[in-house]
Amino acid sequence: MAEPVFRRLCIIGIGLIGSSIARLARAQGDIAGVVVATDANAEHLERARELALADVVEADAARAVAGCDAVLLAVPVGAIGPVMQRIAPHLAPGCIVTDTGSTKGSVVRDIAPHLPQGVHLVPGHPMAGTEFSGPDAGFAELFRGRFCILTPPEGTDPAATGRVAELWRRAGSMVETMDVATHDKVVAIVSHLPHLIAFTICSTADDLAQETREAVLKFAASGFRDFTRIASSDVDMWRDVFLNNREAVLEMLARFTEDSQALGRAIRWGERDFIEDRIKRGRKIRRSLIERKQA
Amino acid sequence: MAEPVFRRLCIIGIGLIGSSIARLARAQGDIAGVVVATDANAEHLERARELALADVVEADAARAVAGCDAVLLAVPVGAIGPVMQRIAPHLAPGCIVTDTGSTKGSVVRDIAPHLPQGVHLVPGHPMAGTEFSGPDAGFAELFRGRFCILTPPEGTDPAATGRVAELWRRAGSMVETMDVATHDKVVAIVSHLPHLIAFTICSTADDLAQETREAVLKFAASGFRDFTRIASSDVDMWRDVFLNNREAVLEMLARFTEDSQALGRAIRWGERDFIEDRIKRGRKIRRSLIERKQA
Repeated sequence: MAEPVFRRLCIIGIGLIGSSIARLARAQGDIAGVVVATDANAEHLERARELALADVVEADAARAVAGCDAVLLAVPVGAIGPVMQRIAPHLAPGCIVTDTGSTKGSVVRDIAPHLPQGVHLVPGHPMAGTEFSGPDAGFAELFRGRFCILTPPEGTDPAATGRVAELWRRAGSMVETMDVATHDKVVAIVSHLPHLIAFTICSTADDLAQETREAVLKFAASGFRDFTRIASSDVDMWRDVFLNNREAVLEMLARFTEDSQALGRAIRWGERDFIEDRIKRGRKIRRSLIERKQA
Repeated sequence: MAEPVFRRLCIIGIGLIGSSIARLARAQGDIAGVVVATDANAEHLERARELALADVVEADAARAVAGCDAVLLAVPVGAIGPVMQRIAPHLAPGCIVTDTGSTKGSVVRDIAPHLPQGVHLVPGHPMAGTEFSGPDAGFAELFRGRFCILTPPEGTDPAATGRVAELWRRAGSMVETMDVATHDKVVAIVSHLPHLIAFTICSTADDLAQETREAVLKFAASGFRDFTRIASSDVDMWRDVFLNNREAVLEMLARFTEDSQALGRAIRWGERDFIEDRIKRGRKIRRSLIERKQA
């Protein structure tokens, strides 16, 4: 078996993502020699112990990171700054700090000021998840066949980037590298805007008159049902995502709103060609995804 | 076996829905004694013959409906009026006209002026479908476990409504009756608005700069992928749905736009409580659907 990528890996945050990495590391010997887990939530810690998710389960984040050659932050992106501030003085020289947040500009912004000399930062975003959350929701296969995007700032030690990339490859992911701004724009449209829309349409339905809302719940056809599945995601995670990728999300929402108003206008004025064109573009994008085996 | 509901049933339009009903009627003896199929599209007619979808495949709609005790219109809702005008003089006295359109106000508006004395109108909407279309896409089980909504105008012969309801029950559907206006409002939010949004987000993505669009296609996460699945639906059907449920669709789009702008504003100004409330409402609706076994 290959040597473990890391000697001692600390996972901070034992939710869906963190506990999946912990399970993976315990199931495969090639990720880390020792896995340390910590979480600010006492119930999560207790579950991590009961489920034996790590070799060491430690309540204090500062003690948890001591002596580790890698620290993986799997907390809502709004918690990244405070956690980093807390652990920074306790990071071993040469340690690699990485994360799993869905926004990368904010992660670099919040971590960089606290980063000690000689500690490496390799931000990461595994594009995997489910509608469930918490330590019980994780599973070792979560990352298999999914993309993981790394956004190492300019000047990052290539060896550090290489080790984080190797972790994700061993998790079964396809690793891509891109700059922070491109990442944030792309996820704004492939993931953040769809979630914003899904949360909104559920609110819109919830505001309907009682009688209509009853019928909505009864007749939720596939279209609406798919939206509610997306909309059932974790509250803390998504609040933080929207707040920490604000510019890109608002930019994509503005474009989407213009486009939906244009389609609404075409419906009002009976512009058949315009409507058909919009529907055809949906089919075209769908075909592109199928060709890329993403559908 | 039970007596067939209809002696001679004419299905006009052999697409996904029409061919599914035809397959069902051929597979089960209890729907119709004789099934006649017709379609304005010569290729569909040819396929209907090759697949032996009906006892009689007839190119001329007027000849097809002659002597039938039931005519089922399974054409895009924009074609309902012209088709009805063409067949009206050839309908047998006592014949029941029904349809499968997704908009019911427009169907009543377009059929009623042509309805001969003594011919019954029982509009229907089977809430079933797939992203595929055409005579090859149909299957007899399409309607099983799905709702079918009937919207008989006031004064409709209850026996006529009862026979159409019996057709759908034998197809495996749960039959509900409601007034036209309620139907059109409910489907506007559970189905038409989600489709409008899905078509729009695909257009928005398609307009992005080449480089970003490439990355969007590459990293289409589950959220965006679900939208493209919805957006790959039939062009003619959805153009007609939007144009024929215009008022309700524009009303729901306006509400949705207000709500999405309110969420965008909360993101811009960092209003955490508002954002969390919107996310929680999505989860609440999701839970309601799960309790109703609709999710």
